[in-house]
Amino acid sequence: MAQLIRIGIAGLGTVGAAVLRILAEHSNQLELRAGQKLVVTGVSARNRTKDRGVDISALQWFDDPVALARSPDIDLFVELIGGENGPALAAVTAALQSGKSVVTANKALLAGHGMMLAALAEANNVCIGFEAAVAGGIPAIKVLREALAGNNITRVSGILNGTCNYILSRMENEGLSFADCLREAQKLGYAESDPTFDIGGFDTAHKLALLTTLAFGVGIDRDAIHIEGIESITLSDIRAAEELGFRIKLLGVAERTSRGIEQRVHPTMVAKSSTLAQVMGVLNAVSIDADNVGRITLSGPGAGGAATASSVVSDLTDLAAGTTQKPLGLPVASLATAVHMEMQRHEGGYYIRLNVQDRPGAVAAIATRMAERQISMESIVQRHSGPRLAASGPVPVVLITYATSENLVREALEQVERDGFLDEKPQIFRIERE
Amino acid sequence: MAQLIRIGIAGLGTVGAAVLRILAEHSNQLELRAGQKLVVTGVSARNRTKDRGVDISALQWFDDPVALARSPDIDLFVELIGGENGPALAAVTAALQSGKSVVTANKALLAGHGMMLAALAEANNVCIGFEAAVAGGIPAIKVLREALAGNNITRVSGILNGTCNYILSRMENEGLSFADCLREAQKLGYAESDPTFDIGGFDTAHKLALLTTLAFGVGIDRDAIHIEGIESITLSDIRAAEELGFRIKLLGVAERTSRGIEQRVHPTMVAKSSTLAQVMGVLNAVSIDADNVGRITLSGPGAGGAATASSVVSDLTDLAAGTTQKPLGLPVASLATAVHMEMQRHEGGYYIRLNVQDRPGAVAAIATRMAERQISMESIVQRHSGPRLAASGPVPVVLITYATSENLVREALEQVERDGFLDEKPQIFRIERE
Repeated sequence: MAQLIRIGIAGLGTVGAAVLRILAEHSNQLELRAGQKLVVTGVSARNRTKDRGVDISALQWFDDPVALARSPDIDLFVELIGGENGPALAAVTAALQSGKSVVTANKALLAGHGMMLAALAEANNVCIGFEAAVAGGIPAIKVLREALAGNNITRVSGILNGTCNYILSRMENEGLSFADCLREAQKLGYAESDPTFDIGGFDTAHKLALLTTLAFGVGIDRDAIHIEGIESITLSDIRAAEELGFRIKLLGVAERTSRGIEQRVHPTMVAKSSTLAQVMGVLNAVSIDADNVGRITLSGPGAGGAATASSVVSDLTDLAAGTTQKPLGLPVASLATAVHMEMQRHEGGYYIRLNVQDRPGAVAAIATRMAERQISMESIVQRHSGPRLAASGPVPVVLITYATSENLVREALEQVERDGFLDEKPQIFRIERE
Repeated sequence: MAQLIRIGIAGLGTVGAAVLRILAEHSNQLELRAGQKLVVTGVSARNRTKDRGVDISALQWFDDPVALARSPDIDLFVELIGGENGPALAAVTAALQSGKSVVTANKALLAGHGMMLAALAEANNVCIGFEAAVAGGIPAIKVLREALAGNNITRVSGILNGTCNYILSRMENEGLSFADCLREAQKLGYAESDPTFDIGGFDTAHKLALLTTLAFGVGIDRDAIHIEGIESITLSDIRAAEELGFRIKLLGVAERTSRGIEQRVHPTMVAKSSTLAQVMGVLNAVSIDADNVGRITLSGPGAGGAATASSVVSDLTDLAAGTTQKPLGLPVASLATAVHMEMQRHEGGYYIRLNVQDRPGAVAAIATRMAERQISMESIVQRHSGPRLAASGPVPVVLITYATSENLVREALEQVERDGFLDEKPQIFRIERE
């Protein structure tokens, strides 16, 4: 019990400051759990004098995170700088090369360089903890990496981005437009001033890439992910979903199919009664389907300084206790190369909202185009939003299909567009039986 | 990688057979994860020749589980015999004494002897894995023991018994009586022929005792738990709950209050929109409130051979990989003695259903008895179930109170009983803001 683990932290934003606070407050408990004292001895950040609510004056200061990572005065390196490349990548690489385990919350870094970094960690007989990189305070990484060892996982799906879920929840609850909700989210600090990374689905995709690797034992392949964001979702979609018993969520889904591994991020219609549909606001959730255990769902705070720091501290404690986990569950050399399934081959039900020019035969023509491709319809709803004044305005038509394949739906809709009935691009959401 | 972990399994029911199957099917993956090959070499059960769907002819057979536990030919011992005392206790004790880590699904054993066994494990520098003992396939133990290291946990609550949840779900969904649902559950194998252990809340209490220890770092104290079962729940309660926006669940709740640690198992009114209310049928769920992470909820299959075996295999893999976890999270010597909060001091809202003799002044008298003890009512509903034919029949009156304390509610209702207005014992359920 006399031993000491010296920790260096690079990046002292809200998460970094919370890690410092938690390690100080829980010092005794963590020592009892880990069998060693966890002490932060060195830090690096952009601004040395900024008030972070924690006293760092007694800690060794490094202007350069790489120097901190290489320092012989630390045993474990925590990277909270962010960004796929630049100082984060340089510092993590340096730490691993000098034989130090790393804890990071950086999904972009791992989605981009995770294979190289995991191999480097294994070569140096150290580990990378990244619980904080996916779903904030929810222990999804630990559950996938450790708790389901005796399972073939068939599917992982989740609400992995709090910003998107917050926007969609508010649109539904308050009838606000996407633009208004985004502005609110920015005001409250839930969305960045450039929100593309979140609302475009890229953040979800980075997290999904890591979950996919842990779930299926395949290499990280961010580029194999089909990505759609939530920018095009309108209040009419939200309302139509509601009427049909669905809720719209931005899901990341990775699935093992007979045709390969499918990875996709897109707005999804989920039944209102499903577990994922209940996850509102900035919360996250991850559902895992596995052969022996069935379905397990984890939900909780997907972001926030303290929740994310809780995951960092959990990783630090495991490392101090001497975990022997491989960063990616299996040794990098044993990860399979995934057979990637193209989105065109996706099979499932579809929600299609068309703005149709209100002239005779339009709906019949659309139905015919679907039928030509053997696409069965569960429902077709054509509704005038107000009193019918003239025959000229466009009319929303909502189609729900039974299971069919993506390429057939795309083909049919291209044909409908060519037929000249549509007033704007079709809105297409996949339906997921969560 | 050349090393081998030799496993002995005592008890070859559905869980034991599933463990054998999973270890065989996942042999390569588990070896890659653990760094050692996990091989079952010895087994013990009551009947050697029974067909279990797995071939045990190549394994060393032991008539006596204690002999298996002591055998120098095994490195890890798996106890799936069941029962608080008898061979399970003897075998686990023998395994730990001979320096072997143990994996068990036996909550009764641990609720009764967990402190002694954990101390014995620590003294022999080995561990006890019991993921399978609580909530079947849900990794609640791992999450509490490892993933929330940097948190003060304030509350754990859960649906921990699939039999009870199945019965309550069917009562609600199909309008069946408790007795009918119990019979169905027995027919389907979800309930034992003597169902007391499940429906009386005792199984939930055993699991709660273990969760309490992991959550709060206090000794296991099964006797401190207030236990009520689901036997007295009627369809009128289910219907009244529904009308009031609630659902009735048998919850285990452990909470750190300013007056001590409260541990209780009882039918609970939870808001229909809450996460736990969505958990239907034989599923289980555990919610954890913690200072840094906020609330995390895990849900999934709480029983079944394969799901429970999945948890056993997860523990075996951790042990083979060389986990350094203490059985109860903290060293036994560091566990605090809990200040136990008496149920009489519980504070919260109450649902009270009274069968009141239909004579003038009855409701007024009841309301007065509540008011005398400063119990504020959120609602009082008196309803005749059919057309009023005579003044003589009893009438159900449902009261919902604002937060008050258990002893005041008990006192008030005792007084109402003494007043002579009641036709039968009052039905009292606590309301939980899940």
